[in-house]
Amino acid sequence: LIFETAQDAEQAFYRAFATADFGLLKSVWASRDIACVHPGGAMILDTRAVLESWNGILSAQGPSNLKVEVMYRLTQQGQAIHLVRESFGNGPGDDAGAVIATNVYKKDADGWHMYLHHASGAPVPAHHPQRPMSVH
Amino acid sequence: LIFETAQDAEQAFYRAFATADFGLLKSVWASRDIACVHPGGAMILDTRAVLESWNGILSAQGPSNLKVEVMYRLTQQGQAIHLVRESFGNGPGDDAGAVIATNVYKKDADGWHMYLHHASGAPVPAHHPQRPMSVH
Repeated sequence: LIFETAQDAEQAFYRAFATADFGLLKSVWASRDIACVHPGGAMILDTRAVLESWNGILSAQGPSNLKVEVMYRLTQQGQAIHLVRESFGNGPGDDAGAVIATNVYKKDADGWHMYLHHASGAPVPAHHPQRPMSVH
Repeated sequence: LIFETAQDAEQAFYRAFATADFGLLKSVWASRDIACVHPGGAMILDTRAVLESWNGILSAQGPSNLKVEVMYRLTQQGQAIHLVRESFGNGPGDDAGAVIATNVYKKDADGWHMYLHHASGAPVPAHHPQRPMSVH
């Protein structure tokens, strides 16, 4: 599979996530120099460990009703940064599973690949119990 | 102030953060097309709102014993992505305040500026109480 644009790579990434297709998801990631942070998780900088973490997530979660909205884009020759909102809710107002992710794509000799995925939990709406805040 | 490299901009950003110098921190951010996510927070895409959020953080927090380690870099002509570990702890093993941040810098006509800052709480070490995990 060759992804001709960052958008193509991103669409494949989220199709793979929604359908729990690890083979497809793996084909989106670059083979080296990648980084991943899951919500509340540590930095994963080793390619094999990144892929294993995704294999675990897809196996545990299975197919999901994932909706994705790209809220921000920054692009420079051969490198694209997208900030997206991933929503796992099943109905209106059900934002309990919303996640914010920064995705970085880069153009290699064989098309565009994902290099970085940094995800964090979006705030729970006011009618849900609040989660504790971290410092910053 | 002109930042000649992404590193210069990043050093100024964290010096400003550690010393609660809002004027310096503001000079690191680009004046438009920026995005910011604080730990557990929502996406902030409006320049004024990003700066106000930082003014609030610096006012509330004051000077801090901040240590920063760059763990990952991805650079392409005029655009740099850094994944850093920010530590607010005061002693060895005190990681209660550790944060992981993705920082994106871009070269403009007047030097390098920060365009995106996405921060999330790092996992609490095993000897601390666990925080709840989000989906993903």
